[in-house]
Amino acid sequence: MELAMIGDEIVPLGELQSVYLDRGTYFGDGVYEVIRSYDGKIFALDEHLKRFADSLAAIEITRLDIEQIRRHICKAFEAAEISNAKIYFHVTRGSSLRKHVWGPDIKPNFFLTITELEDCSQEKSQGIAVSTHPDWRWKRCDIKSLNLLANVLARRDAEKKGCAEAILVNDQGYITEGGGSAFFAIFGNYLQTSPLTVNILPSITRKYVLKAANSIGLEVVEQLFTPAQAGSADELFIAVTTKDIIPVVSFDGKPVRDAKPGRNTKLLMKTFQDFTR
Amino acid sequence: MELAMIGDEIVPLGELQSVYLDRGTYFGDGVYEVIRSYDGKIFALDEHLKRFADSLAAIEITRLDIEQIRRHICKAFEAAEISNAKIYFHVTRGSSLRKHVWGPDIKPNFFLTITELEDCSQEKSQGIAVSTHPDWRWKRCDIKSLNLLANVLARRDAEKKGCAEAILVNDQGYITEGGGSAFFAIFGNYLQTSPLTVNILPSITRKYVLKAANSIGLEVVEQLFTPAQAGSADELFIAVTTKDIIPVVSFDGKPVRDAKPGRNTKLLMKTFQDFTR
Repeated sequence: MELAMIGDEIVPLGELQSVYLDRGTYFGDGVYEVIRSYDGKIFALDEHLKRFADSLAAIEITRLDIEQIRRHICKAFEAAEISNAKIYFHVTRGSSLRKHVWGPDIKPNFFLTITELEDCSQEKSQGIAVSTHPDWRWKRCDIKSLNLLANVLARRDAEKKGCAEAILVNDQGYITEGGGSAFFAIFGNYLQTSPLTVNILPSITRKYVLKAANSIGLEVVEQLFTPAQAGSADELFIAVTTKDIIPVVSFDGKPVRDAKPGRNTKLLMKTFQDFTR
Repeated sequence: MELAMIGDEIVPLGELQSVYLDRGTYFGDGVYEVIRSYDGKIFALDEHLKRFADSLAAIEITRLDIEQIRRHICKAFEAAEISNAKIYFHVTRGSSLRKHVWGPDIKPNFFLTITELEDCSQEKSQGIAVSTHPDWRWKRCDIKSLNLLANVLARRDAEKKGCAEAILVNDQGYITEGGGSAFFAIFGNYLQTSPLTVNILPSITRKYVLKAANSIGLEVVEQLFTPAQAGSADELFIAVTTKDIIPVVSFDGKPVRDAKPGRNTKLLMKTFQDFTR
């Protein structure tokens, strides 16, 4: 008899709940998004849905109506009644017996959670420490997929070093991005960050950071830089949907200038806030 | 109210089944093995458990008794009463609200299936076609993790080309291994395959193939080779737990010699079979 075992309980295979056959678990065969609301208003929903559609297309999850996803999100957001909400959702290719290649009839699985955003006011006011880690991720990080073990292990390494984020460094010795954020350096009057190549997630928060930089008169340079260069920057920060801009005050164990959130970073934070209203 | 949505159904977050919070799905944060039995006897169980323990240690899933896993497998195998069985199992770090870094109290989830092995006699007698694909996988393929989207996409590409397996080629232009198998070439009197480096899965079937090569007098060369070199080989084959050795008779659309399983490959298949008795 074909069977499954969950913990120490045996179940006939035919009676197994389909969630246990999700290709999201077997292969990380799915894509996700994280969105947030500010004071009851979802921020940058169109951009996130656009990126989500791109991710779905890149891994050939088809026959899914992106407007249906939008309706799901809005319905759940209304039901949750949380003003400052973190909205996570993913779509996996579907559930079936484990086999790399999928069949024509597989139906995608949609899953979403809405939770209260964690308070990050202390991180915002005092800044965080970050540490570097080799970028072990796969070669298609432009796809926001569920294959995130490299990110998990990098952030675990950062945690052990007392840091809040891991900054990933590729084989050529250049910083790509954070384990769960985009990474920025300010040198004098310009703001530098990695260019959007095939192995960088096209961060939506990054887009708004660059817009904020323009509006406060910082020149934007999209060019790779090394940890040594980052260590000598005037200011550093990360950007991520759930927290927007967080100053970085320590890099690989060394203080960034006077180890306080920088003047331009604070200006960018303020300008970013204006976009969310 | 914090909530989840499964398909179009809203569930209060507190009532969500823990399987929906499995880090295996969120991050591919888990490791797996595939074992098989030949005529009622599990093959190479110790080696698979050893590799599984190595994978668990590499991603810091601790507090798990490998002997308990062995007992689970044996109990399920006895209950299934399938002579030629495919035994799949994985352990994920556990279930919790999505956050890259895990808490100290998280408890690993064990999951296993036992199914009938698919018949591969035609593949064995006629051989298969394979095609190359860029190796998009992460940089720790020595860990048998659930981050397999690169493998899925490569095998999907192979399927579109009418091929049964994708042969992965790294940035330096060398073959690493198959999307779900080890890959071998025979040139005259020697058998060549990739060396076991940090980005190659230490295949257990590979180990038995090399043993078989020794016993039939083939010299073994563990050295990288290119698709062009593979295309000019006398014989090619893949090796994988569920099917052991499968001859490759077409490589990137071109026949391998006379497009029939080679003499040495057939000898290796026979010798391998002897190990399983």
